[in-house]
Amino acid sequence: MILTKSSKELYTEYASRMRKIADIKNSIALLEWDQETYLPVKGASFRGQQIATLSELAHEWFTTGSVGDLLRTLKDRDDLQEDEKKNVEKSLEDYNKQTKFSPGFVRLLSETVSRSFHSWIRARASNSFAVFEEDLRQLVELKKQETELAGYKDHPYNALLDNFEKGCTVGLLDKIFDEVRGPLKELLEQIRTRQQVDDSFLKGNFPKQQQWNFGMELIKEMGFDFQAGRQDISEHPFTTNTSRNDVRLTTRIDEHDFSNMTWSCIHEAGHGLYEQGLPEAYYGLPLGEYASLSIHESQSRLWENSVGRSYAWWQHWYPRLQRAFPSQFQQVSVEQFYKGINKAGASLIRTEADELSYHFHVMIRYELEKGLIEGSISVKDIPAYWKEQYANYLGVEVPDDKRGCLQDVHWSHGSFGYFPTYSLGSFYAAQLFATAEKQEGSIATELLEGKATTLLAWLRQQIHQYGRRYTSEELCLKATGETLNIQHFLTYLIDKYKKIYIF
Amino acid sequence: MILTKSSKELYTEYASRMRKIADIKNSIALLEWDQETYLPVKGASFRGQQIATLSELAHEWFTTGSVGDLLRTLKDRDDLQEDEKKNVEKSLEDYNKQTKFSPGFVRLLSETVSRSFHSWIRARASNSFAVFEEDLRQLVELKKQETELAGYKDHPYNALLDNFEKGCTVGLLDKIFDEVRGPLKELLEQIRTRQQVDDSFLKGNFPKQQQWNFGMELIKEMGFDFQAGRQDISEHPFTTNTSRNDVRLTTRIDEHDFSNMTWSCIHEAGHGLYEQGLPEAYYGLPLGEYASLSIHESQSRLWENSVGRSYAWWQHWYPRLQRAFPSQFQQVSVEQFYKGINKAGASLIRTEADELSYHFHVMIRYELEKGLIEGSISVKDIPAYWKEQYANYLGVEVPDDKRGCLQDVHWSHGSFGYFPTYSLGSFYAAQLFATAEKQEGSIATELLEGKATTLLAWLRQQIHQYGRRYTSEELCLKATGETLNIQHFLTYLIDKYKKIYIF
Repeated sequence: MILTKSSKELYTEYASRMRKIADIKNSIALLEWDQETYLPVKGASFRGQQIATLSELAHEWFTTGSVGDLLRTLKDRDDLQEDEKKNVEKSLEDYNKQTKFSPGFVRLLSETVSRSFHSWIRARASNSFAVFEEDLRQLVELKKQETELAGYKDHPYNALLDNFEKGCTVGLLDKIFDEVRGPLKELLEQIRTRQQVDDSFLKGNFPKQQQWNFGMELIKEMGFDFQAGRQDISEHPFTTNTSRNDVRLTTRIDEHDFSNMTWSCIHEAGHGLYEQGLPEAYYGLPLGEYASLSIHESQSRLWENSVGRSYAWWQHWYPRLQRAFPSQFQQVSVEQFYKGINKAGASLIRTEADELSYHFHVMIRYELEKGLIEGSISVKDIPAYWKEQYANYLGVEVPDDKRGCLQDVHWSHGSFGYFPTYSLGSFYAAQLFATAEKQEGSIATELLEGKATTLLAWLRQQIHQYGRRYTSEELCLKATGETLNIQHFLTYLIDKYKKIYIF
Repeated sequence: MILTKSSKELYTEYASRMRKIADIKNSIALLEWDQETYLPVKGASFRGQQIATLSELAHEWFTTGSVGDLLRTLKDRDDLQEDEKKNVEKSLEDYNKQTKFSPGFVRLLSETVSRSFHSWIRARASNSFAVFEEDLRQLVELKKQETELAGYKDHPYNALLDNFEKGCTVGLLDKIFDEVRGPLKELLEQIRTRQQVDDSFLKGNFPKQQQWNFGMELIKEMGFDFQAGRQDISEHPFTTNTSRNDVRLTTRIDEHDFSNMTWSCIHEAGHGLYEQGLPEAYYGLPLGEYASLSIHESQSRLWENSVGRSYAWWQHWYPRLQRAFPSQFQQVSVEQFYKGINKAGASLIRTEADELSYHFHVMIRYELEKGLIEGSISVKDIPAYWKEQYANYLGVEVPDDKRGCLQDVHWSHGSFGYFPTYSLGSFYAAQLFATAEKQEGSIATELLEGKATTLLAWLRQQIHQYGRRYTSEELCLKATGETLNIQHFLTYLIDKYKKIYIF
């Protein structure tokens, strides 16, 4: 019967199905947002069930055989428009991927993840990896099975990387990390030998409401549309949305530390601006989705670092900051402030790391995940491996598991293959920003006035409007004239730290 | 195949299905709560779609043939436990009702409602019933069709009453309203001839934050569990929940009017306490649901009026209120305050009416709806009818449609048959409170201390714990020893106003 229908009819059927699935997924996004922001504590268990039911439903609605038939039929039609073709092609890719796993496997994985998350929480509370070890071991075994079910070329870890970054491989990442490892290590060592910068003024007493107000001003000036989004407080900052017209940032405020709120605001708003820039007409369809995790992270990193830690931007904002917190900043010059917020050095916690050492945190996790999946490292050896690598790369001693291998939630979620996108995001960010600055002379002058209108317009034009039409590498090539070139990042970083640490 | 399964298996299947449907419905509750509280303005249109998709889904999941088979098979099994039987019986009732309407009819109704709601908004903005008239006419026609599809005895309006209040009929309501009409009219006329009370101190300057704090204290002392609920701000106060462990109240604050926030807080918390008292084990099943709309309203009214407008309760709370707003209340005695908050008189707006005249607002709507559905009144005549009845019952002149027949949202939602439950709720409230006070001597003394622990325990025991096990009348009989007896309400009201207006 399907064969007798016109392509227009079939495409409408497909689009309507996808939009309904998006409605379910976006409802899940709200249930989860609410869980992290406003849900009363006793509501947690029923909320967990509600999320599970809707997730199951969204999965069923997409992986049912009739969707496969519809997509395959549409794929063979030659009278679709180009955008329609693109949507169908990407959806079929997703369909083929998601139907590789039996419902039994999906359920087993989801149950193991749920158990692992709770044992990770307990492990952190008791500061003991041993509490997490057995569940993590089972999860790693399932992830190995997943690579076999999904299929891969060259290396099993490629199947997991592909979940977060289409087309990303061990071959590509090894090459990139090999290129950056040496220069970054050298830079870090040079910095170690110099006069260290002072950032003590970032700690002190910063009343919550004033911090909140300052963060909101920053985000507004970045161009975040508060008619199509909002910001709230949560324990861990994140960005989510229920449509491109309802984008939700969260931040956290530490009254004794100014950095926490400020750069998490800017970072999450970078993610949020991307979501607000996705094409409205493609709600629920691939062309309305973000390109990849690394491109998403390139947006947050670009704003956080190239803008939010730049000397130019603070020329305008620092006097405003001084007015907001006079007792903290009156005696600190903008130069001192700029150096302080860019202080580099070895540290234990990834999320608190500077722009330089951050990538060692990622590289350690990348090598470790690769080893776990290929079987060269076993779960019980993680703490020892962690200690060794932190000593080796960063020269720090890991005092315990909580500040070591238990610090990130990702593994307990079953997210193996996620961490590398953080580094890729930074690398893309530097390349995109360098190109934007070269193409648009006014960006530099606008930043001096605390504005970023031209920059945002450039990102909307070069990245946001395309949704998932291109892969990360295609987008990068289109926007910058070359695929990922690590030199942009290295040049940016070396220039910056040379100035700060006066080589 | 279904016949070979054990009752235990079938019941588990049924309960699991019902819980999943509840998960979807509770997700809708959150989407709607968010729409009224935090949703950015541009997010409205996609949110509308999301709610529609999930509503359709919940309806499909319940009305599918296999659910009918399951319910009918279970109904015939004789090895179910009593609670299980009750759940199945109530679900089958719901199923038989909901499957009476074709998907086409449901869609048409929902589209007409959606259009009507928007034209009601426009009609209010332009203060003109004419803008709403045609959509309302179509809606009334559909509602008439609904009565035919649903079937009814004696009067078509009975089919609509049954949607909100199982077993409620024109016969019953005519009798009740006939009983109260005369005494209430007489009471109102007596009050008119007396010295009027002063409530001017309720208007003035009441800073938002202080009002909020005071309202939160009241609710807490009522026994509302903030670990299983919360309060937020919305344009129109309401109560909703995503489970009995996540009950959400909203209020609004008018800086120039103290009444608005206070009694809406107490009223909504009354609804909220009921939801928090429903049995957790029956999540998603009839025995975990509220009994009826009138019983729900009896809870909110009982707290709002019998507690929140009582002389006893304010003995404790008024000094605290005076401390919170000294400039407003320092010169006002608790007696003056008590009289002021119980001021009675004719007015135009239902939601602002006192405990006495409120029921004339309801009676007018009841007679009007009955007339529309039986065809004795036509939609175009509503404004004239409204004017006439407000003059007749309340002696007030209706100056325009906004303060007349356009004031309530209900009809634009297609909710014909809803208003009478507001009056029934007040009548049940008076009867329940009188019984509780008689049975539990400590209620009166506790109220004097601003507490209501014994009262809440009594309501939990007599009403909340039963969920939907009994109808309104069965519950009333069980709790008070008699079915609805309007004398309790009349006695309560006459006693109260006699004291206030000194007959």
